[in-house]
Amino acid sequence: MNFELSDELKTLQRTTRDFIREQIMPLENDPRQDAHGPHAALRDELVSRARAAGLLTPHASIGMGGLGLSHVAKAVMFEEAGYSWLGPTALNIHAPDEGNIHLMEEVASAAQKQRWLAPQVKGFTRSCFAMTEPSPGAGADPGMLQTTATRDGRGYRINGTKWFITGAEGASYVIVMARMEDGTATMFLADMDQPGIVHERNMDAMDRCFTGGHAVLRFENLYVPEEDVLGEVGKGFRYAQVRLAPARLTHCMRWLGQARRAHDAAVDHARRRQAFGRPLAEHEGVGFMLADNDMDLHTARLHIWHTAWMLDQGERCNFESSRAKVVCSEAEWRVVDRCVQILGGQGVTAEKEVMRIFTDMRAFRIYDGPSEVHRWSMARKIVQAADRHAGAPA
Amino acid sequence: MNFELSDELKTLQRTTRDFIREQIMPLENDPRQDAHGPHAALRDELVSRARAAGLLTPHASIGMGGLGLSHVAKAVMFEEAGYSWLGPTALNIHAPDEGNIHLMEEVASAAQKQRWLAPQVKGFTRSCFAMTEPSPGAGADPGMLQTTATRDGRGYRINGTKWFITGAEGASYVIVMARMEDGTATMFLADMDQPGIVHERNMDAMDRCFTGGHAVLRFENLYVPEEDVLGEVGKGFRYAQVRLAPARLTHCMRWLGQARRAHDAAVDHARRRQAFGRPLAEHEGVGFMLADNDMDLHTARLHIWHTAWMLDQGERCNFESSRAKVVCSEAEWRVVDRCVQILGGQGVTAEKEVMRIFTDMRAFRIYDGPSEVHRWSMARKIVQAADRHAGAPA
Amino acid sequence: MNFELSDELKTLQRTTRDFIREQIMPLENDPRQDAHGPHAALRDELVSRARAAGLLTPHASIGMGGLGLSHVAKAVMFEEAGYSWLGPTALNIHAPDEGNIHLMEEVASAAQKQRWLAPQVKGFTRSCFAMTEPSPGAGADPGMLQTTATRDGRGYRINGTKWFITGAEGASYVIVMARMEDGTATMFLADMDQPGIVHERNMDAMDRCFTGGHAVLRFENLYVPEEDVLGEVGKGFRYAQVRLAPARLTHCMRWLGQARRAHDAAVDHARRRQAFGRPLAEHEGVGFMLADNDMDLHTARLHIWHTAWMLDQGERCNFESSRAKVVCSEAEWRVVDRCVQILGGQGVTAEKEVMRIFTDMRAFRIYDGPSEVHRWSMARKIVQAADRHAGAPA
Amino acid sequence: MNFELSDELKTLQRTTRDFIREQIMPLENDPRQDAHGPHAALRDELVSRARAAGLLTPHASIGMGGLGLSHVAKAVMFEEAGYSWLGPTALNIHAPDEGNIHLMEEVASAAQKQRWLAPQVKGFTRSCFAMTEPSPGAGADPGMLQTTATRDGRGYRINGTKWFITGAEGASYVIVMARMEDGTATMFLADMDQPGIVHERNMDAMDRCFTGGHAVLRFENLYVPEEDVLGEVGKGFRYAQVRLAPARLTHCMRWLGQARRAHDAAVDHARRRQAFGRPLAEHEGVGFMLADNDMDLHTARLHIWHTAWMLDQGERCNFESSRAKVVCSEAEWRVVDRCVQILGGQGVTAEKEVMRIFTDMRAFRIYDGPSEVHRWSMARKIVQAADRHAGAPA
Repeated sequence: MNFELSDELKTLQRTTRDFIREQIMPLENDPRQDAHGPHAALRDELVSRARAAGLLTPHASIGMGGLGLSHVAKAVMFEEAGYSWLGPTALNIHAPDEGNIHLMEEVASAAQKQRWLAPQVKGFTRSCFAMTEPSPGAGADPGMLQTTATRDGRGYRINGTKWFITGAEGASYVIVMARMEDGTATMFLADMDQPGIVHERNMDAMDRCFTGGHAVLRFENLYVPEEDVLGEVGKGFRYAQVRLAPARLTHCMRWLGQARRAHDAAVDHARRRQAFGRPLAEHEGVGFMLADNDMDLHTARLHIWHTAWMLDQGERCNFESSRAKVVCSEAEWRVVDRCVQILGGQGVTAEKEVMRIFTDMRAFRIYDGPSEVHRWSMARKIVQAADRHAGAPA
Repeated sequence: MNFELSDELKTLQRTTRDFIREQIMPLENDPRQDAHGPHAALRDELVSRARAAGLLTPHASIGMGGLGLSHVAKAVMFEEAGYSWLGPTALNIHAPDEGNIHLMEEVASAAQKQRWLAPQVKGFTRSCFAMTEPSPGAGADPGMLQTTATRDGRGYRINGTKWFITGAEGASYVIVMARMEDGTATMFLADMDQPGIVHERNMDAMDRCFTGGHAVLRFENLYVPEEDVLGEVGKGFRYAQVRLAPARLTHCMRWLGQARRAHDAAVDHARRRQAFGRPLAEHEGVGFMLADNDMDLHTARLHIWHTAWMLDQGERCNFESSRAKVVCSEAEWRVVDRCVQILGGQGVTAEKEVMRIFTDMRAFRIYDGPSEVHRWSMARKIVQAADRHAGAPA
Repeated sequence: MNFELSDELKTLQRTTRDFIREQIMPLENDPRQDAHGPHAALRDELVSRARAAGLLTPHASIGMGGLGLSHVAKAVMFEEAGYSWLGPTALNIHAPDEGNIHLMEEVASAAQKQRWLAPQVKGFTRSCFAMTEPSPGAGADPGMLQTTATRDGRGYRINGTKWFITGAEGASYVIVMARMEDGTATMFLADMDQPGIVHERNMDAMDRCFTGGHAVLRFENLYVPEEDVLGEVGKGFRYAQVRLAPARLTHCMRWLGQARRAHDAAVDHARRRQAFGRPLAEHEGVGFMLADNDMDLHTARLHIWHTAWMLDQGERCNFESSRAKVVCSEAEWRVVDRCVQILGGQGVTAEKEVMRIFTDMRAFRIYDGPSEVHRWSMARKIVQAADRHAGAPA
Repeated sequence: MNFELSDELKTLQRTTRDFIREQIMPLENDPRQDAHGPHAALRDELVSRARAAGLLTPHASIGMGGLGLSHVAKAVMFEEAGYSWLGPTALNIHAPDEGNIHLMEEVASAAQKQRWLAPQVKGFTRSCFAMTEPSPGAGADPGMLQTTATRDGRGYRINGTKWFITGAEGASYVIVMARMEDGTATMFLADMDQPGIVHERNMDAMDRCFTGGHAVLRFENLYVPEEDVLGEVGKGFRYAQVRLAPARLTHCMRWLGQARRAHDAAVDHARRRQAFGRPLAEHEGVGFMLADNDMDLHTARLHIWHTAWMLDQGERCNFESSRAKVVCSEAEWRVVDRCVQILGGQGVTAEKEVMRIFTDMRAFRIYDGPSEVHRWSMARKIVQAADRHAGAPA
């Protein structure tokens, strides 16, 4: 057992940390962002800086132009990137692009990669992932998928409505999940500038860290030729798993950076602000919160590292990534909530960065499977393992 | 012991509930509001409706033009008003006016009441309360007050900076807390349209339910004649207590209404939205959250009622109002957080009202004394009571 | 609304408090008790003292020789009795006799009352209630009842095994719940000294406050004549509800007394014991726990009072008694767990009374329906109420 | 980074696991134990079995006759040993011997090692550690030490009272902590069979897993020659730290085994026991608890492994061992409490092993520093680190 980072990884950690502090954090209050997220112009500038620093799209394979990071290396680097809410955008490792790039690398054809993936890895384009639907469609339960793909000549016609489609506005292409006539699901690739894709509106969301915000999209008879099917027909649900297990974990990594950022702000405040005759930090009530923060941050980091290492060993980690997702989303949330409390009035206003982290992070306990779905998934696997161990249950 | 509401109070409850549903909730998405809160024009319309319904400023004494509500009656009516985030504004019972009106009734001279309180009770004017200061000034610890009042002829000169001054923009008058040369504190009344009061800026806050938002104010040599001292010189800290104990409790009441609103939205969603083959509500994981919500709501209501009843008996309730504040702010917060979780993506977007309640409510665990300060205050009183009971501690 | 206790009730409260302190607490370490509970001899002495003080079996009707207490009066008096772990035994208000007496008053025939209830109210006999069974029988789910009653001439033959039968050893009679041939359930009364009732063993339990401990009983062809059916044939499940709703609440009352006792011990310790230069109570970490204790104790008391008052209004309170049971069992447990923590080493040894309260109380979150069953029951009722309110669910 | 266990360590893990299951668990209900713990005869048999299996005192150095385990190896092996409450006793790795052996290895002279440590490593003797004192002496705050050592010729005279002295009854020697005339502290070694050491009584404790229980000892003019000083005079507090940081962690390891044992029992029960038409485990309310257990167990394991690895790198880990102690003691406790809840009535009786684990484990949140002391210690270190990072606080 060994918790030491390799020298190479330590260098990457330090480089990323310095880059974020020096190149990205000064842009955090740049006016080119609004309630829906950073504008394209700001995003382009951030990406340019990462490109210049050699840190762009580091999780892509070396062949595609990335750094070919292992999961453990991602754990270290993404935490550093996440220290600023603009960091993941800069490095092109934000959701949904990060997961889409991973999925494309795994599943897309060479032609598809050249057409869609290559410019995305270079940071020139963005993508979105269209799975979630309004009731009664696919939500926490992907099996309720309503959007349909019907055969039409050498291609398919896609019809349906999707929402919570992060980054749709301004994206170059979309991966659409649709139900086939036989009940299976398939993923389709499509350029966003087609008449069959209607951007109905952007949703007003609590977070504002995703370029393009979260959209409602309508697919109206969108034609997709068969060469634009992603992977094989009928394997949509399987690919969703391929995308999700690591994608969950990269959320944990990025948000760990944000939680650490909030904690640093709270420690700083607690050292400086006096109340009742001494600094806040010398009150046990505040000190205990700082200690709890440290415990939660370290717990999250250990779960991330362990699961990342298992992924690097070639494990699928469905169980472990569910576990890490629940543990991290809840632990990191507790950290940020405590930081708000320590900062007092400054925690609930933009006087400090913590309010923004608080509102950005709340959704993390929900997307990519709410805590409740992961707990239930874990429970079934725990019992199944016990059944296997015991023979059939008595 | 009797938990029955009087017939009169039941009627008031029903009238308020109907008024809120019919007259106020339809205005909730009125465009005349922004990130800092409702605009004056919207506020005026809301107030007009409450005036027409005979529900305006109900906590003011009958002599001043209110309904002269007991604390228990306030508990019932304010919860109903709080069901809409615009309700307290409509009824003129929102912070800080609600507490200022109470304080003015208790302490102001007849002339002061005629000048400032009478138009406020009629809903024509608003006020603000200037106590909190940037570091190293008064925050959770009011004893750190830095704003000074120095004698100047027949009046005083006030200098200092205040922040988190709710409702300052657009307010007609302010109650300023300042430190005297002898170290005591005094409250002063002043019209807001004087050159000695500089509105530096409004703060970007997580909430947006307070007309006028939260301001940074600078007092630059503001002259206050001695007849505009509120109450007696040197009694500022005592009056702050007079204002705070009931003010804490009215926050609990109003937010209970908001928490109930969120819970109703969550129950409704859980009944309708399907996942994994049945409505969300038929999943124990969701059902347990609904049960916990009910427990928390009822706990909050019982603490409010009990403390209100004690205040009606003439008790000062410093301990009980601290206790109710911590219990209610934490219980009501848990409710709203669970509702976000139940609603999933709709909980973190404006698709449903719960996101707004979530961001509006977070500050409640902080203002009027963060939970930590109240817990510590309670702890000291618990020990003092035990000391008295036991004789001196061994 | 009125939280005032009547003068009569205040007198009863004071009398009970003094009685417990002066007559019962001095016997707490009496050697006539072991790991299974107080011995019969100690129980007899305790009961004699309560009889002499006029406090015996106060919840029984006046006609049967009790004080005919309302539920609210029980709330006040049982909390006082619960301050000592021997108090409920002394007053003859401990489980299961308290609930059995209530059930017998409601359902038993005049002859049954004379034969079994009258001596029990006088404190001369004890009873037990035989419902729970080993797997796969009735537990949290009473519908799984396995014990059978089959018609035999003018009576019934009962067969089956029961466990967790509190107070069985030394009890004079038992109320047995059994399944009829048609699937309904019936309650039967039987003297314990019959050959068809085999006391297999007493279970080693964490608690030791119940006279007679918890037994495993086997019913082997026990004959019960039809006049010993309790109430009507086939109404067993309904009567179980009659018994349970108030019985749950009296648990809450008694354990509130124990939790208050633990809290008093913790306050006392925190005032006296020094660490790091000052009394424990002057450390925020400890002070916060004392404040949390006070909040939890008061929350429990308010839920008890409110539910008791509703029962006094004639409501069935199935929902409210479930709610109170979960709230109180969890709040009171948190109190006792914090007291253990405050007391440190003395909290986990018999040096202080808190360890005993801790081990006695843990089962309270389980019996009469574990928290999980009550939460689920509440959830279904919340949704049903919303359905009724809304018309059929969409 | 690498979470892989070496082949050697995997073998040790498997060997220990099998040994515990085959050799130790069958003795768990051996009658040679009582409320104070295993009797000497049972302990001797357990130790013999471990000796025969080559697993005795594995943490001692190879030179002394142990296996010279690294901290990481201890983490793996002690968890396995802890799966049975008799396992640590069997392997001679229970508190306080485990920590005393470690301290003796670090500090004792060659002669002291030969006299006291050698037979202890062979499992022929036991020891105890006398630091904690009744009020107003040393407890959570060791600085309050009251027991005195005064110079007397070529030795010292020790006077004072100690309590919570685990394993004192039957121990061969004691390490006594006493205050010197100059205010420093010193550790002394003494055989237990001397007239100056009075065993006043054993305390009635909630746990019963420690051979010898927990004693009150009185030192009456005990003479200790100067060659029996452990290490250097005046370094008692420093040595206490040497002993404590790893000792805290070994508690975490052993109790992790117990928590896993409880979890396995709960999973097994949840798979088998039916309620409301399906196995408990198919109820989300129960399934969520199983998932939470898994998260808590894995969190504890990761903290243990990480801290152990740091200790193996030569770090002192005062901060990390405090953190691991709080995280593990609280996480493992939550696991066991949930297991009690899942098991229902069988969780609060000796029908299942969980009740015993519950009562054995509660003290773990208290000894070797209660959670509150560790949180405070962590808080100060967090702030000091920030101060160093920032220069002096502003």
